[in-house]
Amino acid sequence: MALPYTLIIDPLAADDDAEVDGTFRAVPADAPALRVGELSTQRGDGIFETIAVVDGHVQESEAHLARLVRSAEICELPVPNLRQWRAAISFALEQVPAEGELAMKLVLSRGVEHGPAPTAWLSVNPAADSTAARTQGIRVVTLDRGYDHGVAERAPWLLLGAKTLSYAVNMAALREARRRGADDTIFVTSDGFVMEGPTSSVIARIDGVFVTPRPSGSILAGTTQASLFEYIRVHDYPVAERDMTIDELRSAEAIWLVSSVRLAAPVVELDGVPLAIDAEPTDAFTRYLLSPRN
Amino acid sequence: MALPYTLIIDPLAADDDAEVDGTFRAVPADAPALRVGELSTQRGDGIFETIAVVDGHVQESEAHLARLVRSAEICELPVPNLRQWRAAISFALEQVPAEGELAMKLVLSRGVEHGPAPTAWLSVNPAADSTAARTQGIRVVTLDRGYDHGVAERAPWLLLGAKTLSYAVNMAALREARRRGADDTIFVTSDGFVMEGPTSSVIARIDGVFVTPRPSGSILAGTTQASLFEYIRVHDYPVAERDMTIDELRSAEAIWLVSSVRLAAPVVELDGVPLAIDAEPTDAFTRYLLSPRN
Repeated sequence: MALPYTLIIDPLAADDDAEVDGTFRAVPADAPALRVGELSTQRGDGIFETIAVVDGHVQESEAHLARLVRSAEICELPVPNLRQWRAAISFALEQVPAEGELAMKLVLSRGVEHGPAPTAWLSVNPAADSTAARTQGIRVVTLDRGYDHGVAERAPWLLLGAKTLSYAVNMAALREARRRGADDTIFVTSDGFVMEGPTSSVIARIDGVFVTPRPSGSILAGTTQASLFEYIRVHDYPVAERDMTIDELRSAEAIWLVSSVRLAAPVVELDGVPLAIDAEPTDAFTRYLLSPRN
Repeated sequence: MALPYTLIIDPLAADDDAEVDGTFRAVPADAPALRVGELSTQRGDGIFETIAVVDGHVQESEAHLARLVRSAEICELPVPNLRQWRAAISFALEQVPAEGELAMKLVLSRGVEHGPAPTAWLSVNPAADSTAARTQGIRVVTLDRGYDHGVAERAPWLLLGAKTLSYAVNMAALREARRRGADDTIFVTSDGFVMEGPTSSVIARIDGVFVTPRPSGSILAGTTQASLFEYIRVHDYPVAERDMTIDELRSAEAIWLVSSVRLAAPVVELDGVPLAIDAEPTDAFTRYLLSPRN
């Protein structure tokens, strides 16, 4: 089956007790599948997850589904039917190549404007080759996200803890990073705290401790970061989820941007200042993240 | 022709000198027209305009097209071909009802991921009946937008001056307003300045002057606000574009939220405090905004 492989899912066809088979259908890769009235496209009004598929194994699918549910709650979307999503994931998995790295995207949209129903789909694409990012590292600049540290608690309507489809700012920040000669960016608050990348979580080793910014309401809980922290803990290295200032980030011994598909990319330059790759943990992270994980 | 009436537009088919006829085509209202790989739907990565059509007249289409161009510049999208857009607007106008109020939406998307081309479309829907909002007014709450007053100048990658498709926060703010028993909201900065509504501009009469927040980079330049200010000026009333604090808004003699389709909605309650409708200018605004405008 050619990629992208796409399943259109009907969220309303599967209630809690119903059979979920037959509530999704494959559509040809190049065929139009969405109406222009879709609120996902009109308003970026929906949520998503991107899951890695490595050699036929769907990585951490339950963690991603759990986050999809949290995003739906924050955005007041219908609760995703996890039996239906699991069935669609399994069905898609049988249709796509059993080797190599793929990216599986789940989308839940508020549906067609004035329409009765949410819409949903799953699509599988080849993953971009991330070998260079994983082994040679990435250059990163920090960019002001415009929000202060306490904003999420004060203004939950900013949806900061949800993985919404409204990513225009994230994409603009990546363009700004490239304009500055970098590969990626780390968002910081207007009052100097480290947040996250536009499509990744930040892990920094500070005084021997692997630290990630506390997943407050302002920061998306990273599935890959959580998986990696579990791995680091098992190997008896100290980890911490806590507030991190820009100055602390700048003083870190090593920094990684971690995400589901690119995995752990070591930072080799932060705001123009070179940073050495710590090869041993970097290689270990990649090996672990490429191994089958549930 | 049934509504919605939709034209899919091919931005790449029309270069500056080429014939633009034939570079757009109608699609049936209920037919899928977009691929799931669309960055408009995956990332809210595109821009839009909503234009009122009143009794067969497209209102202020040039002002909307000019803003579409500005949004494209901010988002680094291909420059819209205005000859093509004008031709599509004229073509659509011949197909839709010549009476009543309609909403015409123009969308320019970054296109299909990894694809070669931006995508674009135009769709015309019946306008919601705004009679109650225009005559009986709306209840409004202020909500913190999380940004400080100077953020746009400091962080242009937040795209605050562009009308992007990433509207999930705007929609969440409207849900929050309804939760608080209101109909709409006015965003304010974290340091206490009035910004705009999620889908409207703010005009307040303060000490006899019609004031709108200065269209800095943080506030979308309102086409309806600009048109109305021109009307007010012609009638020899004073207008001002300047910074406005929440306290000033609360002390205003009258407030309107103005937008292309709902037009001028007088505010009858601000954060729970009743406010009288000033009937004379409100009626005059509605009559003017419903008259043919170029």
